[in-house]
Parts: sequence; C-alpha cells; structure tokens
Amino acid sequence: MKKVTAEIIAIGSELLGASKVDTNSLFITKHLNKLGIEVSFKTVVGDNWESLKNAFETAINRVDIVISTGGLGPTEDDFTKEVVAELCKVSLKLDEKILENLKERFKVRGIAFPENSKKMALIPENAIPIPNGPGAAPGIFLECNGKTIILLPGVPREMQYMIENFVIERLNKKYKLPQRFSISMNFASIPEAIIDNTLKEIDFEENGITYAILASLRKVQVILSGFDKEKVEEFSKKVISKFPDVFFGYGDIFLENAVLDLLIEKNKTVAFAESCTGGWLGKLITDIPGSSKAFLGGIVSYSNEAKINILNVPEKTIEKFGAVSAQTAFFMANNVRKLFNSDFGIGITGVAGPSQSEKKPAGLVYIAASSKEKTVVKKYNFRGNREMVRQQSTSRAFDLLRKEFLK
Amino acid sequence: MKKVTAEIIAIGSELLGASKVDTNSLFITKHLNKLGIEVSFKTVVGDNWESLKNAFETAINRVDIVISTGGLGPTEDDFTKEVVAELCKVSLKLDEKILENLKERFKVRGIAFPENSKKMALIPENAIPIPNGPGAAPGIFLECNGKTIILLPGVPREMQYMIENFVIERLNKKYKLPQRFSISMNFASIPEAIIDNTLKEIDFEENGITYAILASLRKVQVILSGFDKEKVEEFSKKVISKFPDVFFGYGDIFLENAVLDLLIEKNKTVAFAESCTGGWLGKLITDIPGSSKAFLGGIVSYSNEAKINILNVPEKTIEKFGAVSAQTAFFMANNVRKLFNSDFGIGITGVAGPSQSEKKPAGLVYIAASSKEKTVVKKYNFRGNREMVRQQSTSRAFDLLRKEFLK
Repeated sequence: MKKVTAEIIAIGSELLGASKVDTNSLFITKHLNKLGIEVSFKTVVGDNWESLKNAFETAINRVDIVISTGGLGPTEDDFTKEVVAELCKVSLKLDEKILENLKERFKVRGIAFPENSKKMALIPENAIPIPNGPGAAPGIFLECNGKTIILLPGVPREMQYMIENFVIERLNKKYKLPQRFSISMNFASIPEAIIDNTLKEIDFEENGITYAILASLRKVQVILSGFDKEKVEEFSKKVISKFPDVFFGYGDIFLENAVLDLLIEKNKTVAFAESCTGGWLGKLITDIPGSSKAFLGGIVSYSNEAKINILNVPEKTIEKFGAVSAQTAFFMANNVRKLFNSDFGIGITGVAGPSQSEKKPAGLVYIAASSKEKTVVKKYNFRGNREMVRQQSTSRAFDLLRKEFLK
Repeated sequence: MKKVTAEIIAIGSELLGASKVDTNSLFITKHLNKLGIEVSFKTVVGDNWESLKNAFETAINRVDIVISTGGLGPTEDDFTKEVVAELCKVSLKLDEKILENLKERFKVRGIAFPENSKKMALIPENAIPIPNGPGAAPGIFLECNGKTIILLPGVPREMQYMIENFVIERLNKKYKLPQRFSISMNFASIPEAIIDNTLKEIDFEENGITYAILASLRKVQVILSGFDKEKVEEFSKKVISKFPDVFFGYGDIFLENAVLDLLIEKNKTVAFAESCTGGWLGKLITDIPGSSKAFLGGIVSYSNEAKINILNVPEKTIEKFGAVSAQTAFFMANNVRKLFNSDFGIGITGVAGPSQSEKKPAGLVYIAASSKEKTVVKKYNFRGNREMVRQQSTSRAFDLLRKEFLK
C-alpha cells in the first residue's frame, strides 16, 4: 500500500516572529492521521511572494497533498491564491455568487463593502471554493501537477469548519485509504507518567494498536488506534479498567462536559462561589450550550467584603483562619448553594500567585463541594504559574463534584 | 543593505504528530532578530533520511543561514550530521577530544560508555564543534556552498546554551548587522480592513519601516519595525493619531489590562454582573496579577431566579422586556455596583447561541456600564458561534467601560 503524504504550510509573518507558533497544524494533523494520511513536512512562511511561491513549489515536489492556512483575507499581504494560481499556471476568476455572499455579510452588519474585500471572491480556474461557515473568505480546493492543494484561512474556527465540513470527505473520497479507528479516553487528576508506565505493560503492538497520551492540566487523554475496530474497543476497555476512578468519558470532552451531563441526567443543579479562579469555573461550564439546565449561576467573591457581605462568610472565620482556608471554602460552597437554592455548591479560594497572600504560598488552594447532606473540603498545593494554578483549580473543582456527589 | 535570512529546521517525528509543536524556534528567532537576521522559513521534518536531506537542500538553496534542532543524539534515528555531511560532500571524522569528553561524562556518572554514543563524537570535516554545556552531544557549525549551517540539539536547555554561548557571537562576527526596533500598538472594536486601508496610505516603505496587522476578536494589533528607532517611534504616533479613540495601549496587552491600569490609576473599583458570558469577564480581569486592587467581584446570574433574587432585577422588568433586554442589562450593571459598593458596574445579558432564546436571535447581546452618575446601555448583534459571541461580548464590555468612564 502506497503511503499518502501531506505537507502543511502555515502562512503569516507573525508566525515567524519570536512569540507565536502555528497550532492550526495540530488540528489538521489529527484529522489527516485519522484518514491514514501522514504529515511529512510542516513549513511556516511569511507574507512574502517569493518565499510563499518557493514554499508551495517545494511542497508540491515532495508530497501528495499540500494544505495551507492563512493569506486568504482582504488585505494587501494576503496573496496565497495569487501565488498558487501563478505556480499552477491558472488564472483567477471572480466568482459572482461568492461576491454576492460577501456583500450580503457586510450589509447585514451595516458596513459599507470595502473594495479590497472583493479579492476574497477570486477563485483559481477549475478550483472548488470551500464554504466558510463562520467567516468570510472561502477556502480553495484544487488539483495542480497531479497533487492536491487545499488553501484554508488562518483563523482557527474557519479552518476547522472547512476541515470538518468539506476537506475530510473530499480527501476520503479521493484517496480511499483503509481507515484507522480510534478511541479517545479521558482521565482526570492523574499524572501522565503513571498512565504511561501502565500502558507500557499492555501488549498493544502485537495487536496492531498504537497509543498516544496527550496530557494537559485539564486532563490526560489516551488515544488508541488501529485498523481492527473490535480490537481497539477491546483494548480501550482494558485501559479504562486500569484507572476506573479517574476515567470520565470518551471523545473530545473535558471534565465540565462530564459534570454537566451527570447533573442533567440526575436532574440536579449547581452554583459556584469563586475567589482565585475569578469566574473561570462559570466560564467553563457555560462554554457548553444547554448548561442553563443545571448551572444556576455564581458569586465571584474576589474581595473579603464580597465574601462577607454577599456570600455571608462569617467575618470571624476570615479573621481567624483567613480568606484562603478550608473554613472559608466550606462557607463559600454551602452559602452559594443556599443563595441560589441549588442542589450542589462549589467554593474555591486560594493564592493564584505570583505573590503570596496572607503569608500563604502561591499555589495553595482550598476547594469545597457541598450538598444539603454533606460538604467535602480539599486542600491542594498546585505547582506552576498563576494561570496553571487557576487552571488546575477549575479541573479539580469539577472532579471533586464528580467523584463525591455524581458518580 | 542586503538582508540576511535564516531558516530553522526542527527535526523529530514527534513534532509531526497531533499534539506537539516546535517551540525551540521561538528562542532562536528572538536571538536572530536581535542580530538583525530575519527568519524567512521554519520547517518541521521527521526522522527520515530522504525527508531530512530534502529539508536541508531546500533550506540551503533559499536562505543564508540554516539552523536545525534535533537529531544529534546516539540513537539510530539521529542522523542530522550524516545527512548534512552527505549533502555538503564532506566526510565525518571522529574527534578524539570530544570522544574523551563523552567517556569522561559517563565515567563521572558511573555508567559504562555505550558503543552507540561514539557517533556523537563524529564531526564533519572543516566543521567547528559547538561545546554543549549541560548535555553530551556537541553542536556543529559549518560552511557549505557559501551558506552557514548550524546543527543544534533538540533539548531546549542544550540548544539555548549553544545559542547564548557560541552561536550569537559567531553570527555577529560574521554578519555584523544593524539591529531592528519594533513597536506594537493595540486597537479595540475596529475591523482589520479599516486599519489596513488607512495604513496603506502612510509612507512606511519610503521610510524603511515595515508593518504587520494581527487581528482577533479581542483586538487588532499593529506592529511597526525598522532600523531607525526614532523613525519607528515617529510613525507609531502617526498610526495612533489616525485612530485615537480605539487605541488602548502598547505591547502585548489586552483590553482588560488597559482597563485595570486605568481603574488603578484613577483609584476606582468595578464589579460585574454576567449572564451569557457566565464568568468569562471576571476570569479575564483576574488573569492579571494585582487585579484585586480594582476588581471586587461579580454575580453570574445564569438563571432568571438569580437575576431576580440575587441581583434584584425587578421581576416585572424580566416579564415585560425579557432577560435579554436593555432594561435587564441596566439593572444588572447598577445593582451589581450597589451590591459590591463599587465605583462602576458592568452588566451583560444576551443570547450566546447556538439556539435562540426568548425568541431572540443568537448573537443579540446587551451590555451596560454604570457609575453613580450615569448608565450607558448598548445593543450588539454579534456574529459567529457561541464562543465568538461570548468572546466579543467580553471585549466590548471592557471597551464600553474604558470609553465611557475611564478615558
């Protein structure tokens, strides 16, 4: 079986600076790999005609499929289509239907149609425009010197929309590769190394299964894949059986998805009292459409006065134990539950850092979860910078509710 | 003056997967830019002989300096030196001094010297080995077809050591380049195309200044750079003078940074009442260390009951105008300000989507900002998916407070 190879070209001078890396290629790679297509090269190139031409020329000569992101917008330094048209020796034609759509978009927003936006409606001859759901500029799918060229926007959500709604099907049809099946499993609150050590002892290779571990502060994801669907399923069960307590679901979900599903399933509601996370916990659960079925709201008590006056944490408790204490977390979780009349309450108070507070170290966080019947308070010493401390606080808060009240 | 260009090649199959990006290039880019060297391309390639050869050949043909990271170790899939030697038609010679050093390293650690580690002492003819402070494998500095080739390890601390202790001085001596200066400016609530059209009319090029525009839902950033510091400063003022109302600051900041700075400067406090953003506004301001100086907290009133019982929005207002209405936003902003006894209050209520609510369309959002003296309520019709609607809501909320109360 001949391998099908791809190169991803990320276009944009900002990606050649000292502060920004291309991450679009990760999403694209994930989907290409699922189709059995191997990414052989990734190139980053700036908004420079000659460099861009060189990058496409090089890619066309060394892989089967070239996918680029960026350079499809209306500004002067957007000329990906123009470069590719020159390289493939085709002309660009104005697509009237796309132009109409673009004009309509501006009209709806009450903005005059800028003349430079017209170029977004230019399509190379014999190319297929790829509909852009969330944005303006269409993508481009074309054949050139026997290779497949796919031009996508650099805006992640637009690029993702096109991959999911057009590119996958198109490539699948064209290359008809034996499909790999994969199963993703998510685990909470467990170090990557422990999972890794356990997985090393499972006989994946002999069974034609590959595995990957993706770890972040939000979860550890294990992805198994192979050509034999049943084998992949069998081994996924084997993996889960090693860590039944921390497994929280399949697919591309996070703890908040698992928690929300359990709440809705059990017909329960929750409210949050947040101090050091400042509203992040609420932000995460409301990322999910339909979260209003179980999430009633919360109090961000960033000042002691707010903890005392709005959340009714006894002033004496804060005086005696501090705002960052198990006792304060206890009252936060219970009082927010009463205030919102919800089934469960979560309270988070801690030192996000970088400096200490109340002479307590950055990373010290107390999280409480409560129902009418019981309250659980846990103390954590998180490592890392302010963002990492806050991120871990949100994950552990959801996990505490899941483990202690929803399983 | 001729530009000196570089390409960075990151070597390693793991960098072509769906979970890991090359970040070594950011460190290298920072130092190259300081020397006035422009990075024109970045390439990622796997541990595959033919691909690697292709990557180096391509790079040598299109830039002056090629810097690679990875593939210098002792294992079978480390063959960067071998590929480059083949390409530059030189042989590899065992460097006895390096071999002695390697053996010494292992001896000190009490480990027997593995035979495969011997290859780390192989150096291309006429190349200069680069000392590796924290690690074993030396780097390589060589000239090939009139170009400079620098091979560095993939381990960040080893790569960084070689850049700082060898590469910078070497390149500086060889290329003696003038240094570039750059200034970043941030603008809120303005379409990228409008900025782009205005910037096109400024005579940057004649004055040796380049500009880049980076647009997101949070802001539009304009970056000017050039060799003449005073000219760059002069032109940055020119740019700001075109959009004085929407300019909110220099550098890598967001609206919440500008708002927080203004609040602290004026010794004012703020509290948020959030519905559709679910806590995101609070999350953003508390991302910033020291935000407790001005941010007192907030109410996430995700249910009507929370709006009525906790935020004291009159039940009649919600019955008559709906939870998503200018009237509800008005009460949210004012009542949260009173509850927290803050100088300013912000209220956000809207339909995040994807579905409609109260027969109102997704994307409809009302944002209110209030002080004791006045309240401003604005209606927005944001486009895009749930995340985009929520993201835009937070940016516009900060901007409303900035424009109406803090300027």
